[in-house]
Formats: sequence, C-alpha cells, structure tokens
Amino acid sequence: MRYTQYFLKTSKDTPADESARNAQLLIQAGYISKEMAGVYSFLPLGLRVIKKIKTIIREEMNNTGAIELLMPSLCPKENWKKTQRWDSVDVLYKLKLTNGKEVALSPTHEEIVTPLVQRFCNSYKDFPVCVYQMQTKFRNEARAKSGLLRGREFLMKDAYSFHTTQEDFEAYYAIQKKAYEKIYDRLGIGHLTKYVAADGGDFSEFSHEFQTLSEVGEDDIFLDPETDTYFNKEIVSDANQKKWTSQKAVEVGNIFPLADKFSKSFDYHFIDKTGKKQKIIMGCYGIGISRIMGILAELFADKKGLVWPKSVTPFTVYLSAIGKKDAVYEKADEVYQQLKDQGIEVLYDDRREKKVGPGQKFADFELLGIPYQIVISERLLENQQGELWTRKTGKKIDIPLTDILSLELN
Amino acid sequence: MRYTQYFLKTSKDTPADESARNAQLLIQAGYISKEMAGVYSFLPLGLRVIKKIKTIIREEMNNTGAIELLMPSLCPKENWKKTQRWDSVDVLYKLKLTNGKEVALSPTHEEIVTPLVQRFCNSYKDFPVCVYQMQTKFRNEARAKSGLLRGREFLMKDAYSFHTTQEDFEAYYAIQKKAYEKIYDRLGIGHLTKYVAADGGDFSEFSHEFQTLSEVGEDDIFLDPETDTYFNKEIVSDANQKKWTSQKAVEVGNIFPLADKFSKSFDYHFIDKTGKKQKIIMGCYGIGISRIMGILAELFADKKGLVWPKSVTPFTVYLSAIGKKDAVYEKADEVYQQLKDQGIEVLYDDRREKKVGPGQKFADFELLGIPYQIVISERLLENQQGELWTRKTGKKIDIPLTDILSLELN
Repeated sequence: MRYTQYFLKTSKDTPADESARNAQLLIQAGYISKEMAGVYSFLPLGLRVIKKIKTIIREEMNNTGAIELLMPSLCPKENWKKTQRWDSVDVLYKLKLTNGKEVALSPTHEEIVTPLVQRFCNSYKDFPVCVYQMQTKFRNEARAKSGLLRGREFLMKDAYSFHTTQEDFEAYYAIQKKAYEKIYDRLGIGHLTKYVAADGGDFSEFSHEFQTLSEVGEDDIFLDPETDTYFNKEIVSDANQKKWTSQKAVEVGNIFPLADKFSKSFDYHFIDKTGKKQKIIMGCYGIGISRIMGILAELFADKKGLVWPKSVTPFTVYLSAIGKKDAVYEKADEVYQQLKDQGIEVLYDDRREKKVGPGQKFADFELLGIPYQIVISERLLENQQGELWTRKTGKKIDIPLTDILSLELN
Repeated sequence: MRYTQYFLKTSKDTPADESARNAQLLIQAGYISKEMAGVYSFLPLGLRVIKKIKTIIREEMNNTGAIELLMPSLCPKENWKKTQRWDSVDVLYKLKLTNGKEVALSPTHEEIVTPLVQRFCNSYKDFPVCVYQMQTKFRNEARAKSGLLRGREFLMKDAYSFHTTQEDFEAYYAIQKKAYEKIYDRLGIGHLTKYVAADGGDFSEFSHEFQTLSEVGEDDIFLDPETDTYFNKEIVSDANQKKWTSQKAVEVGNIFPLADKFSKSFDYHFIDKTGKKQKIIMGCYGIGISRIMGILAELFADKKGLVWPKSVTPFTVYLSAIGKKDAVYEKADEVYQQLKDQGIEVLYDDRREKKVGPGQKFADFELLGIPYQIVISERLLENQQGELWTRKTGKKIDIPLTDILSLELN
C-alpha cells in the first residue's frame, strides 16, 4: 500500500482525553479513532491488525472442531427473562421496537445460542457440538477509561459447546484450553499469559481466565506455589492473600463451565439411546478481539511507539524513499513491486512533500511499530544499497539491493 | 466439510411463520435461523454465502481506491442533532448510557464518518478520499415481513467519498457505478439489475438505485423508452406513469450524491492552495450484503430448492456416499480428499444412519442448491464410476472415477 493513497495520518501529540496507554498510542499512530468514551473506530491500519487477530483465533477454533456462524445482536426480552438475567445484568442495553416489544443488545449470546442449537440438535447423535462467532458486543459500562481494554462496544469471539455427559464436556474444555494457549503463543503473549481459576458462578466450582501479566491490568492474580496454580483474587481467602504474592493482570480470555444452567432455562434436553430425556451440559469460551489489540499495544511498545509481533503487524515492511531525486522513487517503486510479488505486505512511504523529511518518515516507522524498514536514499543508491532497520532491536544494516529479495522477512 | 461434523439440518417443512420465499427457503435449507421478526442468525452454510458476497464487494471496492475501515454502531446524539436527523429518522434506535447520555444505534454512518474524516483530511492534498466498511446496521422497522430483504438488523457495505470539486465527485461517482455493475455481474444478477434514477433528497437532483427485477420487489420502476432511462416511481409524474410501463424490483444498492449536506453540518471544509476554506462534496454508496443473499435466494431457486450461482455457493460439490458398504465410504473419503486437495470446496454427505437413504441425500443436495453432486454408490463402484449431477440443469452423467479430478468444477 502506498502511503499517499492510504487513509493514515500519525500525530506528534498524545491525545489529551485518553489516560490508557493503549488508546494513546493507537490513536497517535492512526490505528483507531475515538468516537466517544469506550467506543472507537478501527482505521484501515487498525482493521488490518484486527483481521490478523481474527484469523489466528479462527484457525485455532476450527482446529477444535468448532463451527463458525453469526448470530444477531438484537435478542427478545423473553429470552433474557427465561434465564432471569433481564434485570440482573447491569450492563445490558435495552431497546424498544416500534411495536412496543423490548429487546436486548447482546453483551453475550447464551440467550440466543441455546434456543438456536435446541432447534437443531436433539438426539444424542447430534452431540457434541460447538459453534462460535466473531461479532460486535455491547456493554453499557459505567466507566470506560481503559481504551480498548474495556469498551461500551467491542469485538469478541464467543464459542458455546453442548454435551451429553460431564466427561465429554470436560474433555472438550481441555481441548479449548489448549486452543487458547496456542492462540496466545501465536499472538506473542503466551509466556506472559496464565491460566487462572476464577469464580464459577452458582453452578460451577470454577471458571478459568487467561490473564496476561501487565501493570495496567484490572485484575489481581495469586500464585499458590505449592500447587503451581493461579487464582483470581475474587476466590482467594484472606489468609492466602497474605501468604501468596499477587500480580496485576489483564483478562484476555475466559472459559466457563455452564453446567445445565442455560439448557435448563430453555427446557432443552436431548433424547438418549433409550428414548429418555437427559440434561445437556454447556460450556462457553470467550476472547476479546479488540481487547487483545489493546493489550498487545500495551505490552509491545517502547518510548518511540508500537512494536508489533510479526503475527499481527498490519504490514511487514515499511519502505521509505528518502530525498528529492526521481531515481530514488523509481528504485523504491521497483523494490515495492518486488516485495509485493513475494507476498510481503509493504507500506510504502512514497510521500514527496517538502515537509515530510527523513526524520518524519523514520519517526512514523517507529511509531507505527512495523517490524522492518527498508530505506532507499540517494546516498545508498550510489552503492546500489538499501538500509534495513529492525524495529525491535533498532539495528540498521546496509544491504545490496540485489539481496533484498533474499531476506527472510515474513 | 463432512456433513456429520457440520452444523446443518434441513427441514421437510416450510416454516409456518414466514411469508417471504427467501426466508422460507433459507430456513428450510439450514442457511439461516429466525430469532425474531426481521432478525436472523446466519448458520454456518449461510455465513459461507455471506463471506463470498463480502469478498466480491470488497475486491471491487478496493479496485475503486476505497479503503476499508470499521466504525462503531453507537453514535452520540449530538452528532445526529447536528445533522438534524435525531428526530426525523423514524427507524433510529435510541439508547441511554448509564451516565444518562443518549446515543443512536447507527442505521447509516454519515454522522460518524464525516467528523472522523474531518480529523484526518483538511488540506486539498488529502483529497479525494473514500472509505468503506462492512458492518451490522440497525433499523427499527415497523414491519419486517420480507425475510432478508428488510431486516431490523442486517449486514451492509457502506462507502463514503469526499471531494474538493463537483467534477471530481462526479468522476468518482461514475467509478463507483462501474464497480457496482461489476459486483452484480459477479453475483449473477447483472442482467436483471437496472440503474434507476431516484429521489435526491433536498440537496441533489437525483440519487441512483440499482434495482433487480423481481416480482417480490417493493419498488416500482419505470422505463422511459425514449431516453432508455429507468426511474423510481417516487419521481415519476402521473402523466408518465400512465404512458410508461412499470416493473417490480428490489433495491440491491444505492449511490447518493450528498453535496455538502453533511460536511456543512459539521462545519467541515478543506484549505485550498491559496489557504482559503472551501466546501467539501460528499457521496455515499451502499449495498445490503444480507439483502443480496435474500434476493439471490428469491431469484435462484426452483421447486426443489435453491440453485446458487457459483460465485456465492457455500460449497461447489456435494459428495454423496450411498449405501451400507464400507467400500463406498472408503472410496468417497478418497474422492473427498482429492477434491479438497484441488482447492474445491466440498460438502461430503457421509451420513450412514439407516434413516438417511439416497432419497434424503439427493433431496438435501437439491434443497441446498450446491452446483454439483458427485454420487458414489455400490453399483457405480462396480464399474469404477461415479455420477455427476448438475443442479441447474438436472443433468446426470456417469463418469469414470479417474476422470473426476479433471472435471472443471470451479
């Protein structure tokens, strides 16, 4: 993509109305734009990161046998009444249709997915089944000051599984756990992400959260050194809170045994081999897609800007043409085309305005956090060279232009 | 995809609570599921169709130079007050945040995109620019009885362009028109889709709709035979309504000159070469993604079910293994793998339950509307043959199994 044909403008200033580092950086670098507190647009660069995160999650979900569908946001009030959550979920947006009927704007989809699967799966032969979606979610949050970490509208992957036995559920729960670990590894945060026992509600002993260690986290997690198990503060007794050390963490995912809470609410059973009605065990598995983008921005940044992991970077190479001479831009055009032909995603800084000097281009490269910069300048061209910068290490090396295509960048 | 591992169940019965043919067929064939009037889930098969439609639209939008981003649904009331549409758009859902502030659930995005682009593009050098998104839209419709043709929640591609001169706008409008024509051609409805002059509101002489001829259409369009131009009934005088013949049609897209209506509301101008403030001309370009799926289901169907165009079919081949013998399923497994390896999308009906006989499998193939069926049966295997059915023509031919891979199916 050519910078001059793209929708991108970085800013020298940190936005004054954001206290969260992730939002400050992502706004300054032109990835997102704030529409109101807790509500952001994903600009073209930001949408590219979102799509990469979605692809990783989708691949790992498909590997578990889960099947993608897409449910609506609007949900009839009666569904929420059946599960007794219409009045108890305080972040629920409520709307009135022109015909007077009330609907919820779904913050989670048990109220839709349970009767939906009920319409299709009734015999023991139809199980197990797991469906997932990637969708916009809505939460009427009182405070929304953490940028992408807590939004009033956000992107989510939510999966729901249905089983005929507790054992089958537990086996699948373990498969989802592994898929989540794979996802965090691919996102580059596996080493910082802990599997944490958390509150299981009134129908399950535990649920589990994936918590990424970070000072900006809203959660406190405690490690029991004897069992090497992490616990969320909410379920740690006072005695243990004194004994164990706590760490700040951000919840980046959550898997939850639902037992028969929701299937029971909808009177949803399956027919076993002998023709008898039996209860259905459910699990749900959530991961905040836009929140992941926020936590990556928090974790992978330095004083100069963002430093994306290769797996989610919007582009792999930032190609800077430096100077006034046509020869530089002609050579850069050529390199741009060659890299694209190799399947490398390139953001080509082809700006030739006077006010955009080398300093501005290098600063943009560093702010944007793209892994590599290739610099083509008049001076370098004299020796048929380009310069390769690595964002993470700051290392710069001259390379013969003929060698650019043999670099292993992806 | 193996049928037994998929989330799919067809029904023998037409749903009783749907009057629209598109919804009846799509529900019966397991593509969508109704959550409430005008609100549907896209089941795995349906989501595959949606994704293909999105890919076609995305490719053609990118070809116009438009750049994809993603805006939120929630929009502050003050934006809608500025454009004086808070009280005048009757389908606007309105919500209250916990802090008492009111927000709209966007049915269209001028109120977000105009101030958004204003934050980035201010110099004449920044123009023209066109951004687009694929997103869920909300409309509080009084009646929602047309299935996917008119929903309370639906999927939409909306693009917005910004220009410094009327001429530049008009040139880009013509480019978008061409892109739309390409999209309808690729969707298989180009020959039925007319470019129709429609009401331009109070700021433009005309807008233009793309109307697909269909008896289920809610619109009446009139052809002026002298100028070979189509007009929407809403702008045709009584005299001409008597003179010209009308046809029923469904609106499948809309492009709209916005002049400076919205830029003016937000006091959005650009700075020209001489440093003077000048007005910004806008256009918007919409296409209903889920509505397209609905109209395709209306148009491409026969008594037996759906008949998808190849460009949007969820799978290209329906592979049916018929009978009880293991040898049949082993051969079918093999063919399944070979087709997949060739990049052909296959839905493999590997059901072996007694109650799923050949009749059921053939009926499912016909209901689902997948372009080809390959049948593997005991009888056919004796001669090392399979049977190739073409859904559209109903033609069946025996083919040597060794020839299956040389068929041109995609």
